[in-house]
Amino acid sequence: MREKKLLTKKSQNVSQWYLDVIDQAELADYGPAKGTMIIRPYGYAIWENIQKALDHEIKLSGASNAYFPLFIPNSLFNKEKEHVEGFASETAVVTIGGGEKLADPLIVRPTSEMIMYEAYSRWISSWRDLPMVINQWNNVVRWEKRTYPFLRTSEFLWQEGHGAHADKKGNWERVLWGIKTYEKIYRDFFALESLIGEKSESEKFAGAKTTLACEILVEGGKIIQAATSHDLGQNFSKTLGIQFQDKEGKNDYVWQNSWGLSTRSIGTLILAHGDDNGLVLPPKLAPVKLVIIPILGKKDDKILKYCQKIKKSLEESISLFPGCVEIFDDSEKSFGWRINDAEIRGIPLRIEIGPRELDEKTAMISFRLKGFDKKLAKFDGLSEKIEEMLGQIQEKILNNHHQFLAENTHQVKTYDEFKKITKTTRGIIKAFWCEKPECEAKIKEETKATTRCKLLDAKEESGKCIYCGHDAKFIWYFAQAY
Amino acid sequence: MREKKLLTKKSQNVSQWYLDVIDQAELADYGPAKGTMIIRPYGYAIWENIQKALDHEIKLSGASNAYFPLFIPNSLFNKEKEHVEGFASETAVVTIGGGEKLADPLIVRPTSEMIMYEAYSRWISSWRDLPMVINQWNNVVRWEKRTYPFLRTSEFLWQEGHGAHADKKGNWERVLWGIKTYEKIYRDFFALESLIGEKSESEKFAGAKTTLACEILVEGGKIIQAATSHDLGQNFSKTLGIQFQDKEGKNDYVWQNSWGLSTRSIGTLILAHGDDNGLVLPPKLAPVKLVIIPILGKKDDKILKYCQKIKKSLEESISLFPGCVEIFDDSEKSFGWRINDAEIRGIPLRIEIGPRELDEKTAMISFRLKGFDKKLAKFDGLSEKIEEMLGQIQEKILNNHHQFLAENTHQVKTYDEFKKITKTTRGIIKAFWCEKPECEAKIKEETKATTRCKLLDAKEESGKCIYCGHDAKFIWYFAQAY
Repeated sequence: MREKKLLTKKSQNVSQWYLDVIDQAELADYGPAKGTMIIRPYGYAIWENIQKALDHEIKLSGASNAYFPLFIPNSLFNKEKEHVEGFASETAVVTIGGGEKLADPLIVRPTSEMIMYEAYSRWISSWRDLPMVINQWNNVVRWEKRTYPFLRTSEFLWQEGHGAHADKKGNWERVLWGIKTYEKIYRDFFALESLIGEKSESEKFAGAKTTLACEILVEGGKIIQAATSHDLGQNFSKTLGIQFQDKEGKNDYVWQNSWGLSTRSIGTLILAHGDDNGLVLPPKLAPVKLVIIPILGKKDDKILKYCQKIKKSLEESISLFPGCVEIFDDSEKSFGWRINDAEIRGIPLRIEIGPRELDEKTAMISFRLKGFDKKLAKFDGLSEKIEEMLGQIQEKILNNHHQFLAENTHQVKTYDEFKKITKTTRGIIKAFWCEKPECEAKIKEETKATTRCKLLDAKEESGKCIYCGHDAKFIWYFAQAY
Repeated sequence: MREKKLLTKKSQNVSQWYLDVIDQAELADYGPAKGTMIIRPYGYAIWENIQKALDHEIKLSGASNAYFPLFIPNSLFNKEKEHVEGFASETAVVTIGGGEKLADPLIVRPTSEMIMYEAYSRWISSWRDLPMVINQWNNVVRWEKRTYPFLRTSEFLWQEGHGAHADKKGNWERVLWGIKTYEKIYRDFFALESLIGEKSESEKFAGAKTTLACEILVEGGKIIQAATSHDLGQNFSKTLGIQFQDKEGKNDYVWQNSWGLSTRSIGTLILAHGDDNGLVLPPKLAPVKLVIIPILGKKDDKILKYCQKIKKSLEESISLFPGCVEIFDDSEKSFGWRINDAEIRGIPLRIEIGPRELDEKTAMISFRLKGFDKKLAKFDGLSEKIEEMLGQIQEKILNNHHQFLAENTHQVKTYDEFKKITKTTRGIIKAFWCEKPECEAKIKEETKATTRCKLLDAKEESGKCIYCGHDAKFIWYFAQAY
């Protein structure tokens, strides 16, 4: 049974707060195999809400869901040189199957390019088969030395979409669609503002021509790569022979893309919005939107009945489906303990019901998010009021993040300024960079800050590299990353 | 691009028809690793419809979804003797992770009892934590020597629910809930009638006290074990030390159950309802409920516009969400080819639109299922008519299966009769059995028929074992199984 320990204050120690809140809100637990994680019901319910939102966009865009095998024969996995070099050190390998040693060991998928495109090479033969855009919701394994719940685990859940197109232009449009869809989902559901841009050569996906990423700033001034969309060009199609006959009867290789968002997004959500009292969940992703906490006393039965009446009435309103309203009436837990628990779990709204509310047919509504006052509302019209409040909270959380991002983005002119920021407030640093890998590597070594991206709509300018002082055309975004 | 080959007739060769229809309706394909399967978009869309129906029931019952790791350390997996003996020969084993040999190899989950219950032992301490009922939608791996798409693959998708209860009675109620929920989903969505009963000692789940199964008869007179619900008693809780303190303060081990339904259900669906022309899908699981096929001629544009108008009007009606109505207007494919294709894919209804339908504002509706006549309907009121027809088809498919089951169930009095049926029509054979494993083994050896189950509501009677002639108390159901 859940016993609350003291929650470390986020403002004092973000890393310990993060582990504490995951434990105490029962979002996740450790698995027995190194670096693996159990996503507990409350954490998984957040993932289901994310899936519902994103899956809707994926299907609207004309992509289909499917399922490809977990195991990739080593001989197939090794075909694309850059790809295998990027992943080889992170793979888990099955060498025994059904009690026998395997001649061709099986790689547990770290990503599905090779296994999907082998099938694409058999399914695609004409321009009529294109575009072929298939998405998977699955689990992947990447062996990690240092793991951290949600943000870096040996196994994680994600969706991976894979498009094959007849032309470069159509392909690039899908790459853009990918990253803009993630930006939209992060904004509309997670209440998070993203930076959208292109990764540097050293940070891009193994096997990609270009990688676009969603980068999200969280408390402590560190950034998280929260989703990616890759332009794979014709790299894989040339390796695997994915050819099609165009309208003129000429053979060509398909142009490809892949894009993914994982359970890492839940870690981003926790770190970005939480506070000293626990999680803060945006209403659109919160598994429980509202908790009713009765003040248990002599009038128990009547109070409980009134709580149930409120729950029923709220659940009958359109957007609050069953399960989204909880009554927390465990009389063995004190009123204060129950409020504390609701705060840790980040439930957006709380209704407290005592003898006064019962007599007056009202409800005392409290907000999880700071910046709202308690409000006494009448039972009549409560659903509309709650809906409106949930909308206000969603908006306020997004505005807070928008402001946080603005306040923690620094344009710098000298490397001294750059270094000072990485040692003090952290946050995002905008600086000219000449795009030479050596400067990038030195900056990383000396400040732990890495290139995060060059904004998608960045304009060419004329500047000097923050590190070497040579000519630079673009401003890049740097930050220390999780 | 899809090129139709000739479809083997189901009535002539069920096995070859099954492989042909999976290929031609693009339900699935083979993966490069032995015994693995790709579930293609059309097949996966059926799975998504199954998931939606079943997940709804699971959540209504109070269970929560979660996710547990894919990898089970070998040392943990080996703790429950019967369980490991049942699965050891079927496991895939990861021996290398991140380039290094693992000291404790990892079993790729064949089922999640051990990894979930290890966590239950840490999460459960009081009667207040019970019942704890958690479900997973995931992939599992069981190394198979002889594989068959959907029915027997080395990796498959399923849900596995796992309950822990304070008492034997509550536990058994959840076991019953499991099997009755599967029966309901099979009846209401798959349009399939199940036999629900208890498995024999030799056929039950490794580690279970009792296994209940859903057994479904398909064409060719063979039966499929289509879902199971296990009473695990206190086997696992004693091995893993899952104890709780009851209301009186006494410690006891929890009672447990697990229940699962897999992508095998899609194989069952295909085999049960299909016919010589291809798939027959019950409307509730069909990804495309209706296809509009224009007769392409001189009036092309007007006809196409009329088709789009019909599609739009149908999709605006409540139960036909976007994507459920398809227009198949590829002018490079003949009208006949397109009809043939719609039949292979098992689309329940077809609307053919030619100049006459355009002029008269009507639609000619054809049914995929035999036993319905073509119907000419007016455009006005078409949605209601289509909805009604979809309901009629769903009902008729279920009735057909009900009748098929009745006609192919044989009560026998002698072993000669028994043997004759297994050599001719096959189907289900009801016979007294003394419940001695030797008789069961001999019957299997001589006739390939196995005990399928003893019906859940079977009454004790007085009879003689069909094999040895000794006293027998119950009638058992026998059949040859996939």
